Amino acid sequence: MLRSDVQIISVDDHVIETPNVWQDRVAAKYKDAAPKMHTDDQGRDYWVFEGRPYFNIGLNAVVGKPREKWGLDPTALSDMRPGCYDIKERLRDMDEDGIWAGLNFPSFPGFAGSTFFNATDKELSLVCIQAWNDWHLEEWCGAAPERQIPMAIVPYWDIEASAAEVRRVAANGSRTISFCEAPHAVGMPSIHDAAWDPFWAAINETGLPVSMHFGSGGAPNVAPGGPFTATIAQYGLNSLQCCIELVNSRIFEKFPNVKFALSEGGIGWMPWMLERCDYTWERHKIYTGMADAKKPSEIFREHIYGCFIADDAGIRNIDLIGEDNVMFESDYPHSDSNWPNARKMLEESLANTPDHIARKIAEDNARRLFNFPRK
Amino acid sequence: MLRSDVQIISVDDHVIETPNVWQDRVAAKYKDAAPKMHTDDQGRDYWVFEGRPYFNIGLNAVVGKPREKWGLDPTALSDMRPGCYDIKERLRDMDEDGIWAGLNFPSFPGFAGSTFFNATDKELSLVCIQAWNDWHLEEWCGAAPERQIPMAIVPYWDIEASAAEVRRVAANGSRTISFCEAPHAVGMPSIHDAAWDPFWAAINETGLPVSMHFGSGGAPNVAPGGPFTATIAQYGLNSLQCCIELVNSRIFEKFPNVKFALSEGGIGWMPWMLERCDYTWERHKIYTGMADAKKPSEIFREHIYGCFIADDAGIRNIDLIGEDNVMFESDYPHSDSNWPNARKMLEESLANTPDHIARKIAEDNARRLFNFPRK
Repeated sequence: MLRSDVQIISVDDHVIETPNVWQDRVAAKYKDAAPKMHTDDQGRDYWVFEGRPYFNIGLNAVVGKPREKWGLDPTALSDMRPGCYDIKERLRDMDEDGIWAGLNFPSFPGFAGSTFFNATDKELSLVCIQAWNDWHLEEWCGAAPERQIPMAIVPYWDIEASAAEVRRVAANGSRTISFCEAPHAVGMPSIHDAAWDPFWAAINETGLPVSMHFGSGGAPNVAPGGPFTATIAQYGLNSLQCCIELVNSRIFEKFPNVKFALSEGGIGWMPWMLERCDYTWERHKIYTGMADAKKPSEIFREHIYGCFIADDAGIRNIDLIGEDNVMFESDYPHSDSNWPNARKMLEESLANTPDHIARKIAEDNARRLFNFPRK
Repeated sequence: MLRSDVQIISVDDHVIETPNVWQDRVAAKYKDAAPKMHTDDQGRDYWVFEGRPYFNIGLNAVVGKPREKWGLDPTALSDMRPGCYDIKERLRDMDEDGIWAGLNFPSFPGFAGSTFFNATDKELSLVCIQAWNDWHLEEWCGAAPERQIPMAIVPYWDIEASAAEVRRVAANGSRTISFCEAPHAVGMPSIHDAAWDPFWAAINETGLPVSMHFGSGGAPNVAPGGPFTATIAQYGLNSLQCCIELVNSRIFEKFPNVKFALSEGGIGWMPWMLERCDYTWERHKIYTGMADAKKPSEIFREHIYGCFIADDAGIRNIDLIGEDNVMFESDYPHSDSNWPNARKMLEESLANTPDHIARKIAEDNARRLFNFPRK
């Protein structure tokens, strides 16, 4: 069971950016083209970046609304709980939810910075990425250093620049890098390509784990015409695919200190994935040139972390996954979150789990992975 | 445990076609263009169809070879165990493997007939599909009617013609239709499209279950440059995606008698998939127009069957999947098969499973689904 002294750490939440994030920080010459927030005559807030409007500023920030009202995402900051964008209010919402600390992905930039990846002006985009990283570290996390784990994004269109940004933010105190789960899907080299070695070298050297949020490599490839319920359920398959690629990769031979968290990917599929990958590797390793590689399940235990919101199938089979490889997340303020019942629901899920394992899942694994010790 | 009187039924095996399959059966005017087997000066057997050569006649028929010799697939009938293509030899191999009955997918035509789907001459292609169906029913299964479950393929480029073929083969005694797991991926309407209604109507009326083999909708979308071990392990994700689409579909409201077997897809991911699909549906059903649909896990229990070769994670969680929704397969003669140890390995896997559930998994569920009672 989950003891009352466990400080729950959520390893996947989301912050909605406020108008000042970029305008306060970029040099004068970038201010016009950098993201600015406007309000239209229907009261909708929207970003303008490089002269183009971006609506849907909240992505899916429905926290606190009844399910009957979901569907049209909030279109204005005033239509969201202030906890979405105000760190003091966030801490209050976390208290109500029973969560001690959180790790927040960006919203307007995309989970891993895809908005800037897709932008035209790459000099400006790098400036905007660094501004977000500095704002997040100094303002959002700076206001609650014991309760917010600083995350950073990188200019992943440029591998050397990404490595440099990893080193810069690590020196400043960031604790994880948000990275695209499928770089090949956006036209960059595959994760199996040695082109990424300078990036992995920076990750390896700094010890920052890589957080890959599902959807950061694109939407799942669904059958057209089906309901959106089928699409949402398939996002976890992005994490599953990414995980199979990772446990079959040779990255860790060169860079043994690289670790990955599969944000929002779920964990219930992991026992099957591990069994299947070991079966496949055992049979086909000779002619595929993998006989000298580590077993996929061993790579997994040393380098991969699963993240779940609600996943009773995974918790039941925690012995097959590994009690050191699983972390909780609340997904505040998105529709998958259970605010203000996150702790209550996690307690129910862990009711039959030995105390020391429940503690690892809810707190200790995240503290160890993200180098975020109790003060 | 698996009792000795259980007659194991494998719901996914493969037959390699012999030179006579089409040449014996198509009308004189089609003989030249219909598939003919030739042998080249290196001793390789290959098919010629519509004037084009097709090598790799055995797909992956490595049964009986040591793993060190895998990689170059057998390129001649003489390089395979005769059980691949000779029904009498197959029965001997099944005896040695401890398998009572089998269900065989086509090889040269593709699992669901993709070779003919991709052909130019559609009149000829329909003739070839019907010839395979008749050969399979009369010769292959006719030689061992208690030990071979007849399967048929359909001309799925033409939905009405597919419906007609379903009715034709059902009348002749076929027990299942092999169908493409992702028709949208090959340019046909999505399974959610009402365009398929005439096909589902024929399935519904005849009661033939639909067998969808992984890979029948194409290869998984892997990260380039990774080892082939990662690709093989990802084929099961095709079945997982297909399953999520099906449990979110409205097909069964109009056609309540339609059932699907997810051939070679594995079962260990099903507890997670069911939990996740119910969670997603419960939260999003209102604005996605799914509030009046059945719960995904209920649709699954009534209409979907998982098929596994070796899947201890799935067997451990059989209560979460449903003891009536799972079937065994041997995958003879492909590299995933365990000949001649299939029964021995299944016994080990089911050692802690209650006898009546082991019996369902190994025999009864397949007999019920495929209407293939003990004589």
